[in-house]
Amino acid sequence: MTRSVLSPYVSPWHRKPNMRRYGPPVKRTTPADSKLVTDLAALLRSIPLRDGMTLGFHHHLRNGDWVLNMVLDTAASLGFRNLTIASSSFFPVHAPLVEHIKNGVVTGLDTDYMTGPVAEAVSRGLLKEAVAMHSHGGRARALECGELRVDIAFIAASAADERGNLSGLEGPSAFGSLGYAFSDAEFADVVVGVTDTLLPYPLIPASIPQHRVDFVLKVDSIGDPKGIVSGTTRITRDPVGLVIAKNAARAVAASGLVKDGFSFQTGAGGASLAVAHFLGQHMAKEGITGSFLMGGITGYLVDLLEKGLFTSILDVQGFDLEALRSLKSNPRHVEVGASQYANPLNSGCIVNALDCVILGATEIDTDFNVNVSTGSTGAIMGGSGGHADAAAGAKMTVIVTNLLRARLPIVRDRVTTRTTPGDTVDVLVTERGIAVSPARPELAERFKEAGLKVRDIHDLKKLAESMAGTPKPVAKGEKTVALVEYRDGTLIDEIKQVKD
Amino acid sequence: MTRSVLSPYVSPWHRKPNMRRYGPPVKRTTPADSKLVTDLAALLRSIPLRDGMTLGFHHHLRNGDWVLNMVLDTAASLGFRNLTIASSSFFPVHAPLVEHIKNGVVTGLDTDYMTGPVAEAVSRGLLKEAVAMHSHGGRARALECGELRVDIAFIAASAADERGNLSGLEGPSAFGSLGYAFSDAEFADVVVGVTDTLLPYPLIPASIPQHRVDFVLKVDSIGDPKGIVSGTTRITRDPVGLVIAKNAARAVAASGLVKDGFSFQTGAGGASLAVAHFLGQHMAKEGITGSFLMGGITGYLVDLLEKGLFTSILDVQGFDLEALRSLKSNPRHVEVGASQYANPLNSGCIVNALDCVILGATEIDTDFNVNVSTGSTGAIMGGSGGHADAAAGAKMTVIVTNLLRARLPIVRDRVTTRTTPGDTVDVLVTERGIAVSPARPELAERFKEAGLKVRDIHDLKKLAESMAGTPKPVAKGEKTVALVEYRDGTLIDEIKQVKD
Repeated sequence: MTRSVLSPYVSPWHRKPNMRRYGPPVKRTTPADSKLVTDLAALLRSIPLRDGMTLGFHHHLRNGDWVLNMVLDTAASLGFRNLTIASSSFFPVHAPLVEHIKNGVVTGLDTDYMTGPVAEAVSRGLLKEAVAMHSHGGRARALECGELRVDIAFIAASAADERGNLSGLEGPSAFGSLGYAFSDAEFADVVVGVTDTLLPYPLIPASIPQHRVDFVLKVDSIGDPKGIVSGTTRITRDPVGLVIAKNAARAVAASGLVKDGFSFQTGAGGASLAVAHFLGQHMAKEGITGSFLMGGITGYLVDLLEKGLFTSILDVQGFDLEALRSLKSNPRHVEVGASQYANPLNSGCIVNALDCVILGATEIDTDFNVNVSTGSTGAIMGGSGGHADAAAGAKMTVIVTNLLRARLPIVRDRVTTRTTPGDTVDVLVTERGIAVSPARPELAERFKEAGLKVRDIHDLKKLAESMAGTPKPVAKGEKTVALVEYRDGTLIDEIKQVKD
Repeated sequence: MTRSVLSPYVSPWHRKPNMRRYGPPVKRTTPADSKLVTDLAALLRSIPLRDGMTLGFHHHLRNGDWVLNMVLDTAASLGFRNLTIASSSFFPVHAPLVEHIKNGVVTGLDTDYMTGPVAEAVSRGLLKEAVAMHSHGGRARALECGELRVDIAFIAASAADERGNLSGLEGPSAFGSLGYAFSDAEFADVVVGVTDTLLPYPLIPASIPQHRVDFVLKVDSIGDPKGIVSGTTRITRDPVGLVIAKNAARAVAASGLVKDGFSFQTGAGGASLAVAHFLGQHMAKEGITGSFLMGGITGYLVDLLEKGLFTSILDVQGFDLEALRSLKSNPRHVEVGASQYANPLNSGCIVNALDCVILGATEIDTDFNVNVSTGSTGAIMGGSGGHADAAAGAKMTVIVTNLLRARLPIVRDRVTTRTTPGDTVDVLVTERGIAVSPARPELAERFKEAGLKVRDIHDLKKLAESMAGTPKPVAKGEKTVALVEYRDGTLIDEIKQVKD
């Protein structure tokens, strides 16, 4: 897949689409046709896979995923080359991909998030072509608009039936919501469900329906359950983190947004979860019932639903066994797809209905731009995921972070990489005070009235630098190793090669 | 919408598609956008509706539907002309459409089924252009392939939220599954949800998701509950009908198909329901558990699910309050869309998994072609609905009918209109014997072994004629008033104007 030149980012809602939704080929399936296959090599030959194609994957198996490696090892052994891998995330488990890049089997990557050896290799300039990095909503948009064309999508499913109904709820590798794969199923030219657990037809409930799945590949195991879901997710125990979380919860409570019908998203980080916890206590005390919870779902959010503090959970991705249990058993906990969650270019996504989102940051600058893509060395160690999406949709976007991390100031003059634009960020909460975007003076007033310590973001930057010194700008190489696409498909930043 | 010339029907799986799925325009929706409107006229002007456009509707409100008339009355009052109405069915309640045709507001129709004044007016040649008549699966195919292009779809929903999540389960006009509208939501250029019941966001469960709905039109009432669902559906009490049903159930039992995992579809006609009833008794006695039930869902099928005789119901349309109750409360009773149900040109529809379907007939000929489109005068009084779809998918298609109806033989040399081709029909069960297609000699053998009266279909024809005389061929006019499309989009028959 060759990428055309991207227009530069202007503002969150600048791009007005003038195009039609991508149309994959129309298929024909007779009662005599069978989708069930067990030989991956034979399947790749018969589809057929060809040099230069783009293969799609989802990341719901996280660091327990064996499907991506399995497909690429087989493709490599068959001699295929020049493949582009479009996966919603890459994790350390995908280390074998580095060898496939070195050998020319893989020459392009497209993703929303990456950590581990693949991210390190990309940062060092291993790939000739820059990696395309989307937000989760932006990936759905790119598929829907035909700007990311997937020739063959491999959709790992913890259970399937022989006619292609797919689910993440059953089987030894159960992971919960299959939401990020919905767009792959809808827009890839060929769709292959990959499962280790075949259940009788019809599989109910199915997350992806049979009429969009061309093959069902039965394998011994799709992954390692230990890497897929954690047993429990925990709120932070770090005292500084708890101070930040308490301040953030007080700020949210003071914002005027927390009333009946309040909607809330938080990431699965320890500090973000702690905010949810404290906010839940506030809502219980005040007798407030929120509407929906969104985000990577954990037991903490399930708890808020089960206590009746929120009416529903909209689940595009679950992180722990509690999230899985709830999705399977609670009719008010429902699965949603990536486009419905966060695509800016459809008839209305869920983040547009968000009152408040709590997000983390690797860096934030005095214009409130946030970096969650690169670390202190300039190497890729993350990506937007849903960060830029939720920030653009929510009425109030709150960044929670320590003022210093690993002895480095988090507040900067300019972020190393702009993942989420400052136009969509409203509040920064640190252990030493709260900064509010100049675009939202009314929030600053409310926080002050509530007795919160509101400070100019430049003062927070100076304070951090007085403790840890002014960080030197990262020395960057010339080569662009990744293009950071804003959710609407414009170019918001470029990531340069790390200089050794 | 102008229709291009259709290729003639050849055989059930002759057509191999070489095209891409239709792509409606990509939209953009910001958090500030609102979809909720209450003024239909203002909405039509703002979309904007234009002369010559095609408007889509679904028929889940059946003879209680007020939405189609409401939209057309408003369009007419605004002076729009030359509209094509693509509705999955027309019922007697749509009589006002006749005036809109006479006045030039409506000049084209596209449907799967019609009865009442609209069907009569079409049969008399009121429209200049022939009506396109699909099967239910064929309509989904036509939308998906861009062969039926809907400019604006109006999707009646018994409940909605302000962001466009739509449902048929709640509210005073609840009707159950919204399955036939799924394709309209996916492929119409503009989608308008029409409801009389707004519920808090997020509406759960939603049948059609917010990100495919552009407007939510709130009206006082979408229909008359008395015309929407019947309180109960009943099996036939006619002694002859019961004989036919018992014979059909015995034939199905003798077919070899009824074993664990057996899947079954039946229409909502009294004789078909009676077959389901007797077959259930057989399965209970033999300790057989089937897999899925399909078709227009009634309390009789719900009863089979609740008795544990089948594992699931796949519901594209519900007919009575029991079907509604079950869909709302039983996790093994799930909603499916029209493409998933019966579209031959996707990656595999549910009818392909059917073991047996029981269907009715207005006429059947000695080549086993079936007419459910036109009555004894040649006037349109029906249409395929799912008839041709289920017949093509099922391993065994059984037609149940009296040998005579209104003193006319049902078995003919040649059906007046070919709705479902004889290539896809296996068995005819009448009160005077069972005829088996020459393509299925093994079934005839099994039926004989089971002591059933198997007769040549020509003998059944002669028997009927000996009792009621040979029916005169219907005198037909020159003008073609409807094109009967087979489910794959080929032309299987034409319906000529009725001669007065």
